[in-house]
Amino acid sequence: MPDPTISDRRKDEASAWFVALQEKIIAAFELLEEEAEGPFAKPDMAAGRFSTKLWRRTNETGGDGGGGRMALLAGRVFEKMAVHTSTVFGAFPPEFAKQIPGAEEDPRFWASGVSLIAHPWNPNVPVVHMNTRYVETSRAWFGGGADLTPVLDSRRAQSDPDAQDFHAAMKRACNDAQNPAADYEKYKQWCDEYFYLKHRSEPRGIGGIFYDYLDCPAGDDPVFAKNFAFTRAVGMGFLSIYPELVRRNMALVWTSADREEQLVRRGRYVEFNLLYDRGTIFGLKTGGNVEAILSSLPPLVMWP
Amino acid sequence: MPDPTISDRRKDEASAWFVALQEKIIAAFELLEEEAEGPFAKPDMAAGRFSTKLWRRTNETGGDGGGGRMALLAGRVFEKMAVHTSTVFGAFPPEFAKQIPGAEEDPRFWASGVSLIAHPWNPNVPVVHMNTRYVETSRAWFGGGADLTPVLDSRRAQSDPDAQDFHAAMKRACNDAQNPAADYEKYKQWCDEYFYLKHRSEPRGIGGIFYDYLDCPAGDDPVFAKNFAFTRAVGMGFLSIYPELVRRNMALVWTSADREEQLVRRGRYVEFNLLYDRGTIFGLKTGGNVEAILSSLPPLVMWP
Repeated sequence: MPDPTISDRRKDEASAWFVALQEKIIAAFELLEEEAEGPFAKPDMAAGRFSTKLWRRTNETGGDGGGGRMALLAGRVFEKMAVHTSTVFGAFPPEFAKQIPGAEEDPRFWASGVSLIAHPWNPNVPVVHMNTRYVETSRAWFGGGADLTPVLDSRRAQSDPDAQDFHAAMKRACNDAQNPAADYEKYKQWCDEYFYLKHRSEPRGIGGIFYDYLDCPAGDDPVFAKNFAFTRAVGMGFLSIYPELVRRNMALVWTSADREEQLVRRGRYVEFNLLYDRGTIFGLKTGGNVEAILSSLPPLVMWP
Repeated sequence: MPDPTISDRRKDEASAWFVALQEKIIAAFELLEEEAEGPFAKPDMAAGRFSTKLWRRTNETGGDGGGGRMALLAGRVFEKMAVHTSTVFGAFPPEFAKQIPGAEEDPRFWASGVSLIAHPWNPNVPVVHMNTRYVETSRAWFGGGADLTPVLDSRRAQSDPDAQDFHAAMKRACNDAQNPAADYEKYKQWCDEYFYLKHRSEPRGIGGIFYDYLDCPAGDDPVFAKNFAFTRAVGMGFLSIYPELVRRNMALVWTSADREEQLVRRGRYVEFNLLYDRGTIFGLKTGGNVEAILSSLPPLVMWP
């Protein structure tokens, strides 16, 4: 394991950021709920507020620990939205340890992160996902990303202004003047490859960025600082663009055909998360918090 | 591979049975749609009829073949129901061949089967699944089963008459006087173990039977005949009990709270099929017919 003094400082800084980002996101999304003037799914809907819930991680194997804070919103702009933080530590079960960099010999790990998914009512407003994390085993790395899923076929083109502006924001996060540049093209392509439904030969959405195993060797503070700054930029980049996309679409009217298209598209989201998403499958099969993990699933879904 | 003459006769007999059972099921379920007098989800709903669709299996690797017939119903008793037959052959991809008995050295296979899933409108009517199949690699076997999923918590007890009568019908299928007895207790337990949502520590439904790798060695016609008779008895046992369970429940009134409970319970069905079901995952990852495989997913689902 890295030097405990350095390691603890890194852990404190990273987990404090994820908690701070959760607060910023809560504030930004409650503001959207306040601002919205409709149309709403039901005319008298009130602005939504997050409900939060602390949880502690318990594990039959003992010795593991940590926990997190769930924040869930059921509002008038967002039919269902979740933004969770967690900081957990322990030892991977043997069959998983060998899949995790740096855990092959010593299965102990520490991981902290924030994850978000938003399912809006209005089919004109795209679904979004954002997740960033810092993990330590005998190695240490950041990972994460953000991707956008417009649900109406007519809005799923790369030429749509929402898609173009989302990509531009992610590119800015990679090239933020305060950071050495991250490899935007690589992370964009990784996102396209990862968020792909192989069984349907179709992408989940219009993409974004995805990165993982962004190595932070012990003793190299500048590399940790650079990668941490990039991870913060991804979170702030998300906050700079997604509320803007919501604002420009949330007052558009929609038809029952649009709603049905949205509910069917949400089925693809479920298929991806349960068949392919590493975090979901890993969490469920290693005794993670089921309520937090599956709060990514859409509130209402059709497979007609 | 077994002697081609014997093997072809077995294949013909098995696949002909699965096609015949599909016809019996179509007739029985269309009769239920005719008989029903409501209450219906919408007052003017008409009796549903199956639509059928033939499909051919194509595979980029070439040399594979076969196909099947899908039969889908969207009616007034059944919100969504599918009963499919397929007879397919080819060679397993190397990574799958080693997981399949008898395919470790020679990846060629032939498989035929029937599978059914019914999602009724009325939350008082249980969901059901039935599937039987005959597979040849360098070995040959039958597999299958049937299980019942009441959706209302108040009906999910083993003491409920529906549960008791479903179990009794499956036991009769195992002990049919025309067959040497199959191992009911073993297959019942296998079902309980298989249809279990580990991440929620909850069973999918009240159980039934599940069996697999019921060996039919080449040259041993009596064993093939016995196992084939048992597989037919499972199909007929299903037909002897499930329409009866539908009849006794389909005229019960339900509340919007019952409907919501049903939609949430259906989410568990989706979780099982996409996270754990071997057939679903295997089919999707080996280029199966996505439309047929995923027609098991419920028509409308909630994750509130």
